[in-house]
Amino acid sequence: MNAQSPPSIAFQGEPGAYSEEAARGYFGAEAITLPCDTFAAVFAAVEEGDADRGLIPIENSVAGSIHRNYDLLLRHQLKIIGETHLRIRHCLMALPGVALEAIEQVHSHPQALAQCERFLSGLADAEVVAAYDTAGSARAISRDSDRTRAAIASRRAAQVYGLEILAAGIEDDPSNFTRFLALDRERADPGADAKSSVVFSLDNEPGALYRALSVFAEAGIDLTKIESRPLVGKPWEYFFYLDLAGSREDSLVGGALAELESMATMYRLLGSYPRERWTQEGEE
Amino acid sequence: MNAQSPPSIAFQGEPGAYSEEAARGYFGAEAITLPCDTFAAVFAAVEEGDADRGLIPIENSVAGSIHRNYDLLLRHQLKIIGETHLRIRHCLMALPGVALEAIEQVHSHPQALAQCERFLSGLADAEVVAAYDTAGSARAISRDSDRTRAAIASRRAAQVYGLEILAAGIEDDPSNFTRFLALDRERADPGADAKSSVVFSLDNEPGALYRALSVFAEAGIDLTKIESRPLVGKPWEYFFYLDLAGSREDSLVGGALAELESMATMYRLLGSYPRERWTQEGEE
Repeated sequence: MNAQSPPSIAFQGEPGAYSEEAARGYFGAEAITLPCDTFAAVFAAVEEGDADRGLIPIENSVAGSIHRNYDLLLRHQLKIIGETHLRIRHCLMALPGVALEAIEQVHSHPQALAQCERFLSGLADAEVVAAYDTAGSARAISRDSDRTRAAIASRRAAQVYGLEILAAGIEDDPSNFTRFLALDRERADPGADAKSSVVFSLDNEPGALYRALSVFAEAGIDLTKIESRPLVGKPWEYFFYLDLAGSREDSLVGGALAELESMATMYRLLGSYPRERWTQEGEE
Repeated sequence: MNAQSPPSIAFQGEPGAYSEEAARGYFGAEAITLPCDTFAAVFAAVEEGDADRGLIPIENSVAGSIHRNYDLLLRHQLKIIGETHLRIRHCLMALPGVALEAIEQVHSHPQALAQCERFLSGLADAEVVAAYDTAGSARAISRDSDRTRAAIASRRAAQVYGLEILAAGIEDDPSNFTRFLALDRERADPGADAKSSVVFSLDNEPGALYRALSVFAEAGIDLTKIESRPLVGKPWEYFFYLDLAGSREDSLVGGALAELESMATMYRLLGSYPRERWTQEGEE
């Protein structure tokens, strides 16, 4: 990465996907975004240097943790260098000049359609049609110059495909947030207000987790996330995901992490990084 | 519910949805399944007596916990009476007598299509088309008598819509499981091998969770799930989801739960119920 040129950021999805919106919010609107078909392709792009950084969703306030991306973090050697939260604000968009009354079909990903049920039930005349993804439904309108169709997608998608927003924030639940992680090949400076993410497993015996957590309780270290993930086919074996306040470079935190590692049957520090910067809609 | 007649079971989705497959696996193939548009409608159907029981997905081995259904459990007064795990085995299906070579389009929910990427890339001539849900894509083939189209859906969907399975188990990841909870208006006998599910929150201070877990560690009670869920807009406040071995009726467990309740700022026992019965594909 040349210090003069803007960084390139790999994300999963089409141009205009929510992940791209999050990437631009976090890395800046001048960042060059690189769309990838799959999450695995995002990791590969960063690892192989096709992109400078990556941005992946890791948990959602409605749908929970994305275990798939935890798996990829374990399988690859990338470091978490930051996090960002994006409020999922769905927008209804159509070709410029098209009025809401002219819309005969609304296309989007089934999940986005389901999240806008209340709004859509007010458009009694419009048929609801499933699409492969939100941004793709916006792109198709532009490609087909179809003045009878609207899409539900991100504000960014309207920008990318030259569509006009007819209604913004049409989701039923205004508290739908996704947390994204920024990835790099190298560690970054976690700064003064840091967070660390770790994955580990323990011997299968009652109280093992309690003893592991005692390490942090005794050092007065705050936990910001804890989650057990059962291993399929192994009813009493788990991975644990833990996020905690502080950086590995802090001696108290570093000592606690070393103690956890000594108790764990598997241990991996995914990164120490600056605690959340919120992505505000419309900042771009 | 009449003891002589089979129970009616509310689930979210179309006839032939994976939730219906799980409901038939858990309650028996003679159960009368009641499709509902939304998860909220499942809760309402059981609460108002339109259905005897309900079955909802609560976590998936790839996508994580379904917070939406935890929210509904908190908002309603239904009891968890059991759990069941379903392996998500995707099947490719078409009208009877149609050969794989004749398929021009494959329809399904985008998530199912993405989970069968490897298989689909082998069908180079077939176009992949997004649908609102898996079962609906099967129903549409039947309705349209379309011999050029296949759907990806559950084995149950093929049964319901009179389709033939061209390939089964076509998902890339064979360890894709969903855990479902069975709901009733009344508590059930949790039996000898029980599990309890509880949701609580704690005063926001370091070590609070550790002290709460000490209650279970000291009593030698095994935890089978722990998860923190941040409250949107309240960066240091959490709900915790906890599953533990044993029943509220066991005095050791009952005592530990009472102690947890006394420490918690919010506390709700969602149920004590028999530990997992696995749903095996093809048992019906």
